[in-house]
Amino acid sequence: MTTNKLKKRHRAKWVVKTRQEVSYEIIEAMNLLDPKNPTLGRLPGGRKSNGTRLVILDHSIEALYDDQVRSYFDVNRIPVEYLSLTAGDEHKTLDQVELIAHRLNEIGTYRAGTPPIGIGGGVLQDVVGMAVSLYRRGIPYIRVPTTLLAQIDGGVAAKNGVNHGGFRNRLGTFAPPPRTLIDRTFIASLPPRQVRSGLGEALKLALIKDPFLFGILERHGDRLVAEHLQDTSEESRQVQPGLVVIKQAISGMVEELQDNLWETDLRRIVDYGHTFSPMIEMQALPYLLHGEAVALDCVFSAFLAMNRGLLSPCDLDRVIAVTRGIGLAPSHPMFCDAELLSVALADTVRHRDGHQNLTLMNGIGSATFVNDLTYPEIGKAAAQMFDLLDADERVRTTD
Amino acid sequence: MTTNKLKKRHRAKWVVKTRQEVSYEIIEAMNLLDPKNPTLGRLPGGRKSNGTRLVILDHSIEALYDDQVRSYFDVNRIPVEYLSLTAGDEHKTLDQVELIAHRLNEIGTYRAGTPPIGIGGGVLQDVVGMAVSLYRRGIPYIRVPTTLLAQIDGGVAAKNGVNHGGFRNRLGTFAPPPRTLIDRTFIASLPPRQVRSGLGEALKLALIKDPFLFGILERHGDRLVAEHLQDTSEESRQVQPGLVVIKQAISGMVEELQDNLWETDLRRIVDYGHTFSPMIEMQALPYLLHGEAVALDCVFSAFLAMNRGLLSPCDLDRVIAVTRGIGLAPSHPMFCDAELLSVALADTVRHRDGHQNLTLMNGIGSATFVNDLTYPEIGKAAAQMFDLLDADERVRTTD
Repeated sequence: MTTNKLKKRHRAKWVVKTRQEVSYEIIEAMNLLDPKNPTLGRLPGGRKSNGTRLVILDHSIEALYDDQVRSYFDVNRIPVEYLSLTAGDEHKTLDQVELIAHRLNEIGTYRAGTPPIGIGGGVLQDVVGMAVSLYRRGIPYIRVPTTLLAQIDGGVAAKNGVNHGGFRNRLGTFAPPPRTLIDRTFIASLPPRQVRSGLGEALKLALIKDPFLFGILERHGDRLVAEHLQDTSEESRQVQPGLVVIKQAISGMVEELQDNLWETDLRRIVDYGHTFSPMIEMQALPYLLHGEAVALDCVFSAFLAMNRGLLSPCDLDRVIAVTRGIGLAPSHPMFCDAELLSVALADTVRHRDGHQNLTLMNGIGSATFVNDLTYPEIGKAAAQMFDLLDADERVRTTD
Repeated sequence: MTTNKLKKRHRAKWVVKTRQEVSYEIIEAMNLLDPKNPTLGRLPGGRKSNGTRLVILDHSIEALYDDQVRSYFDVNRIPVEYLSLTAGDEHKTLDQVELIAHRLNEIGTYRAGTPPIGIGGGVLQDVVGMAVSLYRRGIPYIRVPTTLLAQIDGGVAAKNGVNHGGFRNRLGTFAPPPRTLIDRTFIASLPPRQVRSGLGEALKLALIKDPFLFGILERHGDRLVAEHLQDTSEESRQVQPGLVVIKQAISGMVEELQDNLWETDLRRIVDYGHTFSPMIEMQALPYLLHGEAVALDCVFSAFLAMNRGLLSPCDLDRVIAVTRGIGLAPSHPMFCDAELLSVALADTVRHRDGHQNLTLMNGIGSATFVNDLTYPEIGKAAAQMFDLLDADERVRTTD
């Protein structure tokens, strides 16, 4: 005892070395709001809960499903309180995070036993995820993403965040909720533009790692949009492209997250489409949806790849055709502005700790990293994007 | 390939299972502001840095060390920008966190390569720690705690946070900075009340796990306060009680944090003195310092232990004597208010997920957990605390 104490007394350095085990599940679950389905009310792991839970909805979900949500918890006699939030990227603010924390405090939410339930799109999940990761330094929650974008991208990842100082997701944490429930039926009621925007993230994954998914998008693009991924037509009932897109996209994301959840490796192929778009999306708010901006970045980066000989002109044409096929514009005036694109890259470089780590396609469904992109290359691809604009957009952009 | 794809298509559940390795160092470093000492300017791991760093000071440090800090970075040609913050628990707010994030953004702080340096007390470290844990979802920083409290408690732990809605540390994260530098010479210039408050946390550790440290506090309490732990007197130069208290307290904290950094186990003996005090401290702001409130909670909880036969009356007297010996009040009117103490316990129970998990002393230097504390027991100990008040305080409290 004494020698041990003496040794400690002369120690001039201490090292705390430990590890945090993290595990979270993403469950495909149909008809979550059917009162006979116990899934939504259960805790991670499947147990019943005690104590009051906070149910956080965004306005879109409230408008369409308010009665169903309320009757679900009534019928199942789960004590809940409600909070509804305004969706839209311009409401992805620290104020909303504080509002949620305030309500959690008000109803006396426990450290683990009474996890809130967040039902809504990506913005809601991002602010709820951040609020619960800060409240009492982190409590669990049940994540129910209701847009296609959230179901296949943000809603399966570990990140949350808010915009700050004009920068996208400048503040946030890595804190995956222990349980995410994916109910594809929510997509049936989504505005068509949001369906298309969601497919933008599926496109991203297809381009850099999944030729199979690319094929599905190429062959079934318009039907996916028309049917809101519900596979209602005779043709879709065979192949089930809606189901396949969701499962394939989630599988791809999970594969990429598994070994790099905290982004200790800043070379992430899933950052494809997210190099130039973050700043442009913020500047265009609320006129560009996230998936729209990502798709534009994907096409722009495909030009960069083609110009470097990494992608054949024929494959570039297929990329553009698929983008159009899922109802997304392959070009936009802001992606023709080499100056703006360079500024956007510079901020992303800071986020990648001083390196470009730019993912480029290496053929369809495969990727490589580049660290020596030059301004002339940006300029050339910007000019190619200009040629891709509609004739009247070209006129407006030149004015 | 095809069978694999098909298998995925029929999978209805995904599990992400991974682990985060965390390691951080706490280094005893004298005379950090001596321009010849390279330690302060170096990155975690010891490399030199490139790019502009943000140096965040609290007003107390600025008032006393501003010239030294500036000349340190000038002489060493390390490009820095400065931000100074108001100390004091009432400034532990989300606004301060935003202010820091704003400055980090302004100077273009990278994701890892240009870690900020936070020089100041516990409040500064808590808000800086939270800001850097949110900025770009977490960047490293160099933590230089300058008060005794921060050097032996908050400044070596993994937690950060701000007060919110009238609750102490209601929002925050677990995110230890990779490197903490402990320079005892800062304590020389600390206001005496802050030295005493810091010793309150050392007392806590002594009572529940370290009889050796208790002995040091018992024998050298008044000298520790008088010499600001600098061991300047002839007697102190032999035993070095100041050095021993700091090293012993840090070693104890590190031991307790090592295997429970994220508080997955909510039975934490280092929560001793932190059951009733958080709410009382918030209500008393700014009239009770953290260590003062902790010491009061320690004595109150020692009464609870004695009344249960876990602590002898003689050992209780020693606890009270040591508390007085390090210049802290063993009682306070708010700790005589059984109603208030019960409300405080109720909130702590929510924080411990519905359980009391109350640490009580089990003799001096040893602890046990209790989950069945009753209101009458609180009432009895509150009455005993009342008897411990000064005569005039008793009169004021009864009025």
